[in-house]
Amino acid sequence: MNEIIVGIDIGGTTTKYGFVDDSGNVIYQNSIETQVREDFHDYISDLEMAIRDSLAQVNSSLKIKGIGMGAPNGNFYRGTIEHAANLRWKGIIPIVSLVEEHFQVPAIITNDANAAAMGEAIYGNATGMNDFIAITLGTGLGSGIVSNGKLVHGHDGFAAELGHVTVNPHGRQCGCGRKGCLETYVSATGIKRTVYKLLADYMDDSELRSHSFDELSTKMISECALRGDFIAKEAFEYTGSILGRKLADSIAHTNPEAIFLLGGLSQAGDLIFEPTIRHLENHLMPIYQGKVKILPSGLPNQTAPILGASSLIVNHFKK
Amino acid sequence: MNEIIVGIDIGGTTTKYGFVDDSGNVIYQNSIETQVREDFHDYISDLEMAIRDSLAQVNSSLKIKGIGMGAPNGNFYRGTIEHAANLRWKGIIPIVSLVEEHFQVPAIITNDANAAAMGEAIYGNATGMNDFIAITLGTGLGSGIVSNGKLVHGHDGFAAELGHVTVNPHGRQCGCGRKGCLETYVSATGIKRTVYKLLADYMDDSELRSHSFDELSTKMISECALRGDFIAKEAFEYTGSILGRKLADSIAHTNPEAIFLLGGLSQAGDLIFEPTIRHLENHLMPIYQGKVKILPSGLPNQTAPILGASSLIVNHFKK
Repeated sequence: MNEIIVGIDIGGTTTKYGFVDDSGNVIYQNSIETQVREDFHDYISDLEMAIRDSLAQVNSSLKIKGIGMGAPNGNFYRGTIEHAANLRWKGIIPIVSLVEEHFQVPAIITNDANAAAMGEAIYGNATGMNDFIAITLGTGLGSGIVSNGKLVHGHDGFAAELGHVTVNPHGRQCGCGRKGCLETYVSATGIKRTVYKLLADYMDDSELRSHSFDELSTKMISECALRGDFIAKEAFEYTGSILGRKLADSIAHTNPEAIFLLGGLSQAGDLIFEPTIRHLENHLMPIYQGKVKILPSGLPNQTAPILGASSLIVNHFKK
Repeated sequence: MNEIIVGIDIGGTTTKYGFVDDSGNVIYQNSIETQVREDFHDYISDLEMAIRDSLAQVNSSLKIKGIGMGAPNGNFYRGTIEHAANLRWKGIIPIVSLVEEHFQVPAIITNDANAAAMGEAIYGNATGMNDFIAITLGTGLGSGIVSNGKLVHGHDGFAAELGHVTVNPHGRQCGCGRKGCLETYVSATGIKRTVYKLLADYMDDSELRSHSFDELSTKMISECALRGDFIAKEAFEYTGSILGRKLADSIAHTNPEAIFLLGGLSQAGDLIFEPTIRHLENHLMPIYQGKVKILPSGLPNQTAPILGASSLIVNHFKK
């Protein structure tokens, strides 16, 4: 083993990076803060220094084969991060050319959910699948669509924004400026909004009445639901009903073999999978019923973003 | 010119077939009735005889390069027609193997809307586009999705059933057994249903009050709208509002360069295009606004189904 792939996951708060060997093991993982530097060039210099230090520490004879990156609004075609709402650097950032300049190896970027989809295809539960969808349920709802064995990037590189299909045009306010987008209902934030709606609608006792919106987390809602809390159970039922209904529309688009539910909210397991599958089947056209698997990730939660990012390079060299 | 492609469009009433030369000209077109024969094998024999007679009539030295077919529920992967609601032959019909046996040339089938999409890509307004969607507005609503330059067939060969995405889960009864599917609102039949709903809701005078549901046609509604009839104009506005809203969801899936509106209802021109585009833009996420073209077919209405079917063979030999 002389070559590794660097996987980088750029989030609003931290930038995780890791080294992945030929067998798909994450042999090292670390992070830096994303937004301390005002100038994006300084951020890239810091990132390079951190990666080179780590590399020297792990094994100075290791060579970097390529650098894969997942980032909000990462554009595969142009190698850019474009107008990312949760990053301080505005406009269009030519991150791929900067990273290639610093490291002199091939670099690829796409958005974090596309990277997650590719991670499942290369290292996870989607190996061998030519047609599937990955849904990441974090602060928002991201997605990656694979058709005919390839990621669907679309004409402008902004395909698979399933967080912004419309559940109800008069519904909840969304960060994108519109109303009723799927992610306002189905995401870590969405289920908190649903809990608050249910606490308003019902008079039932609930442990959740003692927590502020800011305190509330998916984990707390899950634990309450497992203890039988009516509001918490209803919140998962409502979330699954909306996700199931909209996934039926997605299946009518690309007829996937499977849909993967990934990220924070998916950790709730059966609490979210069971109502999602039940409502999905109720809304599917007969030709699709009972045929599309709804599956969890095959990757460990801790290393999934690194593996997703590095899988872009594996896929690049496969061709 | 010694070789032609046979394009066959199998509809519930008639089966159209035609010969397409290397330059994409339909040099001959004819049809037989689809459902006179109880046994599907007899239908194929009749079709072969008709095609061979026509060929002898046009130019007996012509050779058939391949046979492309569009049919309801045509399955590309399996070469079958499966459980087509509007055909008398039930179950799974292995049409490709039968046709290849009769003609000893390569045959391909897919559903009629996928064929229409490929027709636009090879002969029409989508040449050079790698990512687009074709919507056929006939009795129902069919669709074909092209991503990364290839038709999206999905895992089971039933991708792109956009007629059956859900507008309203408590809405109009659909032939698929569910409620509120897009095609119950947006299709030649859908707009008739809308006219009847509007005639019930409003008290305005309208020429359309003197026609039975069975008499009513898209053409009549168009002509009334052009004469300023309120109900007819409202019917197009309503149809466009629903189509625009749902196309926004489709764009969030595959981020196409363009969406083509084809078939009967699209012949209404601006009456359907203008409200569709207006409502679409109102429902799009900012990153997509003003970027996706909504376009008419580049093919003559009369020969489009033949060209669509034959384009499957052109595409097959291109690889």
